Amino acid sequence: MKMPDKTLPRLANNYLQTLIGQPVHAIDTPALVLDLDAMERNLASMAALASQHRIKLRPHAKMHKSAALAKLQIAAGAVGVCVQKTSEAEAMVAGGVHDIFISNEVIAPLKLARVAALTRRVAPHGGKIAICVDSMEGINRLAICMNEARLASGVATSIDVFIEINVGQNRCGVAPGDAAVALALEIRKHPALNFAGLQAYHGKAQHMRSPAERRLAISAAIAAVSQTRDLIQAQGIKVALITGAGTGSAVLEAASGVYGELQAGSYLFMDADYAANHPDPAQPRFEHALFVKTQVISCHAGEAPYVVCDAGHKCHAIDSGLPKVHAFSERSTLEYANGGDEHGLLRPTAGNSRLPGLGSLLWLIPGHCDPTVNLHDEMIGVRGGLLKGVVERIITVDARGALT
Amino acid sequence: MKMPDKTLPRLANNYLQTLIGQPVHAIDTPALVLDLDAMERNLASMAALASQHRIKLRPHAKMHKSAALAKLQIAAGAVGVCVQKTSEAEAMVAGGVHDIFISNEVIAPLKLARVAALTRRVAPHGGKIAICVDSMEGINRLAICMNEARLASGVATSIDVFIEINVGQNRCGVAPGDAAVALALEIRKHPALNFAGLQAYHGKAQHMRSPAERRLAISAAIAAVSQTRDLIQAQGIKVALITGAGTGSAVLEAASGVYGELQAGSYLFMDADYAANHPDPAQPRFEHALFVKTQVISCHAGEAPYVVCDAGHKCHAIDSGLPKVHAFSERSTLEYANGGDEHGLLRPTAGNSRLPGLGSLLWLIPGHCDPTVNLHDEMIGVRGGLLKGVVERIITVDARGALT
Repeated sequence: MKMPDKTLPRLANNYLQTLIGQPVHAIDTPALVLDLDAMERNLASMAALASQHRIKLRPHAKMHKSAALAKLQIAAGAVGVCVQKTSEAEAMVAGGVHDIFISNEVIAPLKLARVAALTRRVAPHGGKIAICVDSMEGINRLAICMNEARLASGVATSIDVFIEINVGQNRCGVAPGDAAVALALEIRKHPALNFAGLQAYHGKAQHMRSPAERRLAISAAIAAVSQTRDLIQAQGIKVALITGAGTGSAVLEAASGVYGELQAGSYLFMDADYAANHPDPAQPRFEHALFVKTQVISCHAGEAPYVVCDAGHKCHAIDSGLPKVHAFSERSTLEYANGGDEHGLLRPTAGNSRLPGLGSLLWLIPGHCDPTVNLHDEMIGVRGGLLKGVVERIITVDARGALT
Repeated sequence: MKMPDKTLPRLANNYLQTLIGQPVHAIDTPALVLDLDAMERNLASMAALASQHRIKLRPHAKMHKSAALAKLQIAAGAVGVCVQKTSEAEAMVAGGVHDIFISNEVIAPLKLARVAALTRRVAPHGGKIAICVDSMEGINRLAICMNEARLASGVATSIDVFIEINVGQNRCGVAPGDAAVALALEIRKHPALNFAGLQAYHGKAQHMRSPAERRLAISAAIAAVSQTRDLIQAQGIKVALITGAGTGSAVLEAASGVYGELQAGSYLFMDADYAANHPDPAQPRFEHALFVKTQVISCHAGEAPYVVCDAGHKCHAIDSGLPKVHAFSERSTLEYANGGDEHGLLRPTAGNSRLPGLGSLLWLIPGHCDPTVNLHDEMIGVRGGLLKGVVERIITVDARGALT
């Protein structure tokens, strides 16, 4: 019946405090390391893209889960952030971010009450909370919770509501067309709900490898959301904003003239999966900024030599493929194979027989940055490169494990 | 240059405190839920297996990462626990567990100094620390760190050292035979190192589906480790213990007469991957005790109807396959498909067209329990079943994210 003692010290804290100002080699392994120079170039590239197209940028904080990085993005011109979960929104608000779009459906009354509480918490800061719906029941539950919160607190706040339409992701979202019109009419019945527009996010298009495939998919999304917008506006209801896009396709939505806001997130860190996309000529070139630093702990000679490193899939997500080994030179190309939860196996690629020795340091580029970041309590920010740089700051993953 | 504020409240804490004594339906989703009754039956079954074969049980705490559950296992007869990482050992010691085997190679001097510090921390409690080696360099690094710690602290402690031999896992471990003899001779040169025996863990054998395949693989492991033991003993060096085995094969090592200690971990929770093994007739039947509780947040009718739940792979690991949906009756069989980081797609299985409605609660059986537990801060322990039970305790995942 005893509650766990949350005050048990995380033993690594002293180590982290002493790390600032130290050279990169002082970072113990495995660790999530952020190349701050590369990240800042990515930050500037996406801000420039949005600015060039006069489109709002609301980066997805489900990726970095860090209020500090969200504030960096806002300082560079972003209007706020997206999140997927109520608890991610809470972590952002706790960290001083006050303009948050929960780009997902929330159904449980317990969570909707927390969403309503957030609208009151951000109001004194001039902030606002937005959310997605894709059903009548979802709209009614949200309205009930907003009204109950208003009665209980005596404070009248409202929430921006976006109708999510399915433009090819085939996950959440109502079909484009009449079903969306019906939801818009329903939202308008509730004074605490402010109909703010449409979410038309095509997650699958982000990872289509060829620019031609991506253009085809996003063209269809643009057509579907335009038609739905026109149907809703024909009812005398203004569609103020269409929001969507990820790193893989942002250049297309930005140029569409239909979308008014980009939700891209991964551009800040760039992972191996996004790097496998054949680039659109119009897209800025984003650099890898997120790495797992790892170390060789076991060496094996013989006919098929390999070494073992101390980073397995408790360190990096494998949903979008295994990590790539960052090569500092032509002679250091290695292939990573899965060695289970705590280990990775490294083998020389064809034509390169040189394997690193015991204790050697290696840098992995995660397959997918979002769930990789979620495995770590902090990112260690390095200035001046991975080889000769210095630890500049520790960035807490505020919303790590924020699942509800 | 500012350090992150580690005192930011985890907003869910109040909620967790009020949850104890509440019925299961009060648990918000997604959440990691432990069926305490099923877990305790698994605990007893493995303890009985070990007792019957008069073999030591040292469960792997890399699985549950909880000092409270480690102590429950020790109270049921286990001699201590295994871990894979130095930081996991630190979390166990902080939680009051004092007999710990780091069943892995540790190479970084920074970490070896922490291992040496642990030998001093557990000594006053009559505890001990053990570790694996598979190289001369590894032995020498360990000896240097133990000696430095002895000089710095003035306290003489020793560490149990196991030579890991490769019996088919093809990851860490020296080849069976002469290479292991050479390492045993080297360990004996260092007064702070106590040669304690051999680790012969065959991870791949755990997941071979047929009992015949598993028996063949473990027979080969038994032959290799017996021969190596005899070669070392022929040098006048006693091999006090052979340690290994996981949940999939433990019944074989237990009956071998060669192994003296079982390292099984997953038996306590049982995951979907282990349940896919065809059982050995001699093996106890373990029950699923670990579940992800999730909720339907979006419903889609039409020719290929589906619903979306709020648990994606930030909630459960997918390295050993997607989760199974726990079926309470024949009419509720559903198939889970990957919906990304935060979503799952649920479709009816053949012959069953009934889909749960918006807000419906579902229970997922994770594909692989170890990395799933590592995604959560706590497990919610339920007494009396998933449908009508009551929350009895909150079990902290003490070593969550303990990667170094």
